[in-house]
Amino acid sequence: MAAGSNNLIERVSNGDPAAVARAISRIEDGTAGATALMKQIYQHSRGALVIGITGAPGAGKSSLVDKLAMLYRQRGERVGIVAVDPSSPFSGGAILGDRIRMQTLGLDEGVFIRSMATRGNLGGLARATVDAVAILDAAGYAKIIVETVGVGQDEVEIVKAADVSVVVLVPGMGDDIQAIKAGIMEIGDIFVINKADRDGVFATEKELELLLSLASRDDNWDPPIVKTVATANQGVDLLADAIERFRQTQRDAALGSDRRRAIARWRIVELLRENLLARVLDSDASVAMLNRLADEVATRRRDPYSAVEELLGGGGS
Amino acid sequence: MAAGSNNLIERVSNGDPAAVARAISRIEDGTAGATALMKQIYQHSRGALVIGITGAPGAGKSSLVDKLAMLYRQRGERVGIVAVDPSSPFSGGAILGDRIRMQTLGLDEGVFIRSMATRGNLGGLARATVDAVAILDAAGYAKIIVETVGVGQDEVEIVKAADVSVVVLVPGMGDDIQAIKAGIMEIGDIFVINKADRDGVFATEKELELLLSLASRDDNWDPPIVKTVATANQGVDLLADAIERFRQTQRDAALGSDRRRAIARWRIVELLRENLLARVLDSDASVAMLNRLADEVATRRRDPYSAVEELLGGGGS
Repeated sequence: MAAGSNNLIERVSNGDPAAVARAISRIEDGTAGATALMKQIYQHSRGALVIGITGAPGAGKSSLVDKLAMLYRQRGERVGIVAVDPSSPFSGGAILGDRIRMQTLGLDEGVFIRSMATRGNLGGLARATVDAVAILDAAGYAKIIVETVGVGQDEVEIVKAADVSVVVLVPGMGDDIQAIKAGIMEIGDIFVINKADRDGVFATEKELELLLSLASRDDNWDPPIVKTVATANQGVDLLADAIERFRQTQRDAALGSDRRRAIARWRIVELLRENLLARVLDSDASVAMLNRLADEVATRRRDPYSAVEELLGGGGS
Repeated sequence: MAAGSNNLIERVSNGDPAAVARAISRIEDGTAGATALMKQIYQHSRGALVIGITGAPGAGKSSLVDKLAMLYRQRGERVGIVAVDPSSPFSGGAILGDRIRMQTLGLDEGVFIRSMATRGNLGGLARATVDAVAILDAAGYAKIIVETVGVGQDEVEIVKAADVSVVVLVPGMGDDIQAIKAGIMEIGDIFVINKADRDGVFATEKELELLLSLASRDDNWDPPIVKTVATANQGVDLLADAIERFRQTQRDAALGSDRRRAIARWRIVELLRENLLARVLDSDASVAMLNRLADEVATRRRDPYSAVEELLGGGGS
């Protein structure tokens, strides 16, 4: 390992924000040395509490995250925020969240905010996100909040990989609330009804209680429903209490080991997937071949399946 | 190839719904023969119009899709609907959408409805979805609607792989509309403001127009904004017109070839990723090894990076 990399790890573990930012960029880019860097980083794990927050767009997740971060700051803890942005796989997409946020929290040195977006269509967003969390943990951020916009598969996986998963709803979400709930029901350790000063909060709460009563968890935890008005800073302390309570339960019961194993398995598979792809597309020649095959598939001269066979060196799979 | 498989393909190309359902299950399960099946299926492409519909939960996408399907049915076309459900990667999750839907459309033999959900954490949802579309195309469904709940990365990729992408918004979506729009801006060929009988429709339309005016497309298409009230069947014909207009433009201009190439590239990479993973995890021994490594990572005796190195047979990557 190069001396520069050891120096970076030392600076990360001393909590230097610039070093943290650089380390995250390195793993995001997947540049050479990222693996060596992460193997070192994992040796510096400090056991931060990782809080995953997801929910429908428009539910006010960002406000809630900001207020929760402020509460932890008031308690003297350093807070890392990782915001996962769903964006186009074809161009990388734009990120507005960061800039808006920096206005409220950005001047506080005890808060580190980072947006993670997909880069091209080679994936790796979920892997980069969990690595960013590990870097923040090594840097001594005691509370790490992972926020995802959307309820897609990647986002769900990311949030589920947290120590505590918070699902944010909002009163009167309309007619596909059933479908959403079916998807997120088993993800949420804690449910928040934000914008609880709006009409329909009672109906949403009852509906949610009903759905929760139908679900069965294998850890005896009864997911609480917390009502908040994040913009007015109401109920945020109750959310923090619920998070702490869940953490305590998990620790005491020595439960959640199945969950930790499932998470670990998912992380290994994600990383494996990315490594395998990088090995096939490791040269200019193979990328050129991919591009030629994409041309042929686009013009229907070939189907995607035989294109993959050619990339893998012929023969059936 | 087995005779049974040829028979299945023949039945699919004759439009037999039971054969379509079986073919989709086969590619979803990724069982042996799925590759051979799909290579045959692609030879039966008929050039259906594939319409991707996405948008925030609660926007009323399902109602809109149902009404659009009914309109196409009235015009005598067979319609395939593929609903992509985001669900937990750890258990498969539940699907409620299907059962609700079958009540309205299920008795019509000219409509085929299928939900695609993630199965386990080995991915492949996006690949399975585009394959399901290809099967429906081979079976002669002239209009295929792919509906995704959520705005996650996978969902965005799936919708973008359609011939026409429709983004559904709803008046007054709240404070992270900016973030959502940044992500979906370049995806939408057509924007729908559904529930257009609600307050705030004018403000949402103006905001959307502003954002659209800032975006630049490379195909000179100016994405229209269509206002609908799906539950009252209002504006659905306007949406169908906009879809047809976009299709015509794309055909005439011979534009969109960059887009088709990007889609083809993405499909190949998805398939490649899945094949590579299947090759590594192809035996009971390798799956047992993965499980053992997951245990070690879960209990912090090992980091995920060195676990992957071990799975790949040692040595650095």
